[in-house]
Parts: sequence; structure tokens; C-alpha cells
Amino acid sequence: MVHNGIEYGDMQMICEAYHIMKEALGLSADELSDIFTEWNKGELDSYLIEITRDILKFKDTDGSPLVDHIKDTAGQKGTGKWTVIDALDNGMPVTLIGEAVFARCLSSIKKERVNASKLLGGPASSKYTGDKKKFIHDVSKALYASKIISYAQGFMLMREAAAKYNWKLNNAGIALMWRGGCIIRSVFLGDIKTAYTKNPTLENLLFDPFFTKAVSEAADGWRNVVAQAALLGIPAPALSSALAFFDGYRHAVLPANLLQAQRDYFGAHTYQRLEDDTWVHTNWTGRGGNTASTTYSA
Amino acid sequence: MVHNGIEYGDMQMICEAYHIMKEALGLSADELSDIFTEWNKGELDSYLIEITRDILKFKDTDGSPLVDHIKDTAGQKGTGKWTVIDALDNGMPVTLIGEAVFARCLSSIKKERVNASKLLGGPASSKYTGDKKKFIHDVSKALYASKIISYAQGFMLMREAAAKYNWKLNNAGIALMWRGGCIIRSVFLGDIKTAYTKNPTLENLLFDPFFTKAVSEAADGWRNVVAQAALLGIPAPALSSALAFFDGYRHAVLPANLLQAQRDYFGAHTYQRLEDDTWVHTNWTGRGGNTASTTYSA
Repeated sequence: MVHNGIEYGDMQMICEAYHIMKEALGLSADELSDIFTEWNKGELDSYLIEITRDILKFKDTDGSPLVDHIKDTAGQKGTGKWTVIDALDNGMPVTLIGEAVFARCLSSIKKERVNASKLLGGPASSKYTGDKKKFIHDVSKALYASKIISYAQGFMLMREAAAKYNWKLNNAGIALMWRGGCIIRSVFLGDIKTAYTKNPTLENLLFDPFFTKAVSEAADGWRNVVAQAALLGIPAPALSSALAFFDGYRHAVLPANLLQAQRDYFGAHTYQRLEDDTWVHTNWTGRGGNTASTTYSA
Repeated sequence: MVHNGIEYGDMQMICEAYHIMKEALGLSADELSDIFTEWNKGELDSYLIEITRDILKFKDTDGSPLVDHIKDTAGQKGTGKWTVIDALDNGMPVTLIGEAVFARCLSSIKKERVNASKLLGGPASSKYTGDKKKFIHDVSKALYASKIISYAQGFMLMREAAAKYNWKLNNAGIALMWRGGCIIRSVFLGDIKTAYTKNPTLENLLFDPFFTKAVSEAADGWRNVVAQAALLGIPAPALSSALAFFDGYRHAVLPANLLQAQRDYFGAHTYQRLEDDTWVHTNWTGRGGNTASTTYSA
């Protein structure tokens, strides 16, 4: 199930990279195919990059790129959705697959989007005016880093399930199995296998030195692409969700202190003191009792 | 259920606005309280902004802001999760509440985040160097626009459920009910009531002239905040997911054409021709049969 969810994520990320380069740089299908050809020789080397290269080169009977004749409404068989529901049930933030599944849902309401496109404007220009070659490199880094996040999230979900159901998972073996003949097969899965072979009890994929370094080296380009997508009005839900997760994950302190205060204010849900983890309730308003709770609690 | 999901979203967005201003601008809890005081006088006027103002002003026994002594691990009672699962089951992209629920999950694995914070670095600086006052205004616009998206998504889910279960929903009445005494009560819900009163069969909240204009006027500031959050390394999953949804929603053409090509390439899932909606399969490789499918389909 997690394999298939990750496949949803990989496909969505590739679509976003394609969309950003097509719209921001105005590249043709042939030019994009050449870029994927290059990418398939490096750290992104994988079956899905390889078939994307071939798809973008494929011509319709009239000689135009076939991909431009395909309707942009994605179907789904449910395994991505199943992964996200399982993540929610296990309290694990598998955000990238979540955005990938929702992106398919959004694509499928095409009639409504066509109506929306007539009413809702975007920025003055969606064209990137900086260095093209550097930006293409940045997009490859955004894709690579987001992919690391997605796999890290998938392994987090399996870690949680293993703890819950008392499974002993062989993560290196899982990575090896996924590499062997599946749609997500890639050089990258070999690096994951290496990480888990070296340290079978690795807490998180991002803690393996290879991936810590990889994500750090990719960060500048990744940040630039996410920022440009926002400024140019090109949707990049998976790439930007992955970055938001990464930045949340590496924050020892998140703003959930305010959220806990709100929950205690309106619902007397209590909160923990940072100093000693004791649970307390504050009478924020100076009115009412200490344990008053509202009907609507969250 | 959707009311409670929206409440999760509202709270998360406020936390992100608080976090961005605190970290990027280095503002104190008192200064932040003053900002929320101002915001509560305009289009953001609401119960949650009001209590945030009060919470940020509240002092601990030693005179320091109480909020700084509260542990940043958010609890949840499950209604947000329930909304997201329902959205997945109904194929509606309720992305903002999804990110809000996952943000609570991420906050709750604090020990792991503390470990991550020692290994995973961010940008050289997380400080915003531009005009402070303008940036604070931009954050209010990011919050307002994202809130419009979240409510639009919530009503999309109810619209879908109404169609599925053959309900006749009074959307104006729902907005009025939510305004009357609930945690999400706000001036904003009055505007939603007005929109649905004027047009009870409004396809999407974003198509009401008031909200079309509101989101368009907020867009520049919103884009700047999302871009800056990415560049400065401050997590803003809900604000950036809302923007990605908006940009996807207003695109008549999304890159799901490539995704459908991939699904047809590896799984012979077929795709629709843009010209006439006919379903076809392409023999992409020139090898094998026309209907070959793999074990792993997505």
C-alpha cells in the first residue's frame, strides 16, 4: 500500500516539474524530453523519469506531441487514498501523498476549473525571467529533495504501523524489493537500501548521512522553485508541501503552543508546561470555572 | 463535521501567521497581540483572532508571556481527521484541512523534531529584510485568502455529499448557524451567508463576486508570504497548500495529461482524447500487446 502511495507522489512531483518548466520557461515537449533524458542519467535515474522522457517524445498521427492531446483529468484506483487514510489513522504526517491524491481529485473536476479559469486571474506573468539553465537545475533539485521527503514519510508510516502491530520490518529488504521491477524502481531506492543496511534501526531516512547531505545540498534550488511557483502562479502542491514538511520537521519548536493555548481557552482541553510536561488549565478570561468546555471541541 | 474541520484549518493558519511574524520579523508576544488586535477590527474579525489577541497578552506568574511556556505538541479529538477522510472518500480536494491535521501530527512527534533540528539545517537567515509594515499586511492577506480557500473547500465537500446523498442543503443557513456562537464565528461568515442568499445555487464560493474580488486583491501579499516562508525556511503548510489549490483551481489545463500518459504507459489504464473525450490506449513502446497491465497499478 505504501509503495503505491509513494508511486502517486512520484508521479505528481514529475507532473509539477513538467508543468513549472513548461509554463515558466515556455519549453516544448521535445525540449522537456531532452531534460528528462539528462535527469535519467543522474540521481533521478528511475523508471518513471525514463517513461516520461519517452512520453514527451511520442508523436500523434499529425506529428504533434501526443501528450498535448491527452485530457488532464487523472483517474485513480484507490491505493493512494488508502495510504493517506492509514496515515491519518496512525497520526503520521504523510503530506506529500496526501497532496498527490488531492491533486488528482482537483484535476478530475475539469469543467469547474474551466469555469474558474475565466473568473480567477493570476499574476501579471507566469514567465521566469532569471537564468533558464540554473532554474532547470533547481527544478531537478526540488524534485529530488521532495522525493526524499516522500519516501521518509512513507517509512515513517511503516515505522508507526510496525510499532502498533508489533511487526519486525526489514527496511533494507523493502527498499530492495521496491527496486526490483516495480514502477517506482530507481537508483534512489538503492541508496535507501544502503542506508537501512548500514543502520537497520535508523529513526528516520533524513538522519542517514547520505540523505542529510543530499537534502541540504538540494535545499537552495528547492526553495527557489517553490517560491517562484508561488510568485508565478503555477501550482506545485507536492513540491511545496514537501518543503513545508521539511521546515516543520527540522523545527524543534513549532507554533502549536498557540494552538494548545487556543484549545485550552475555548474548550478547557488543558496543555503541557514546557518546563516539566505537567498538564494544566488556565482560566484565561478570569470568568467562569476551571473546567468549562464548549459543545464544539477540536 | 465540516465545521470542526474548518476550525482545525482556521487555527493552523493563525499559528502559521504567528510563526512567520515571530520568526521572520522577530516580534514579541506583546507586539503580536497588538497586530491581532488590529486584525480583529477588519475583515479577519472573528472569535479565534480575538482569543489569539488575548492569549498573546496573557502573562505567566513571572511576568513573561504564558504562551512561551506552553509545549508545542497539539492534541486532537478526531473531527478534523474525519473531515479529511470524508473528503478523500468523496474525491474532493480539501487540502487545507488535510495539512492542518497533518501539522498537528508533526507537532506531536516533538522528540524526533528535536533530534532533526540538530541535524537538518535551514537557510543562512530566517529574517525578513524588507518593509516590516508591508509584510505584516501581506501576512493578514495570506491568512484572509487562505481562509476563503478553506471555506470554499468545505462547501465543495458538502456540495458533493449533498449530490451523493440527495440532500437539499441551505448553505446560507449553514453559514448563519456557524456564525451564531461557534468557535469559528466571524464577520466573514456573514459574507458567506450573503453570497449564498443572493445565489442559493452558487457553484463555488470563489465564484461569488465579493469573494472573487477579495481573493484577487489578497493575491499579491499572499504570494509574497508563501514565497518568503519557503526562502526563509519557516513552515507554512496551510497557507502554501491553499495557494497551490487556488492556482490549480484556476488552471483550465493541469499537468494531469502527463500523469494519464504515465498510467497508460505502465498499466494500459487508457486515457481520454482532449478533442472528443474518447478513451484510447497507446502502444507507447511498440512492444507487447495493447492491453498489457502490470501488477502494480495506480
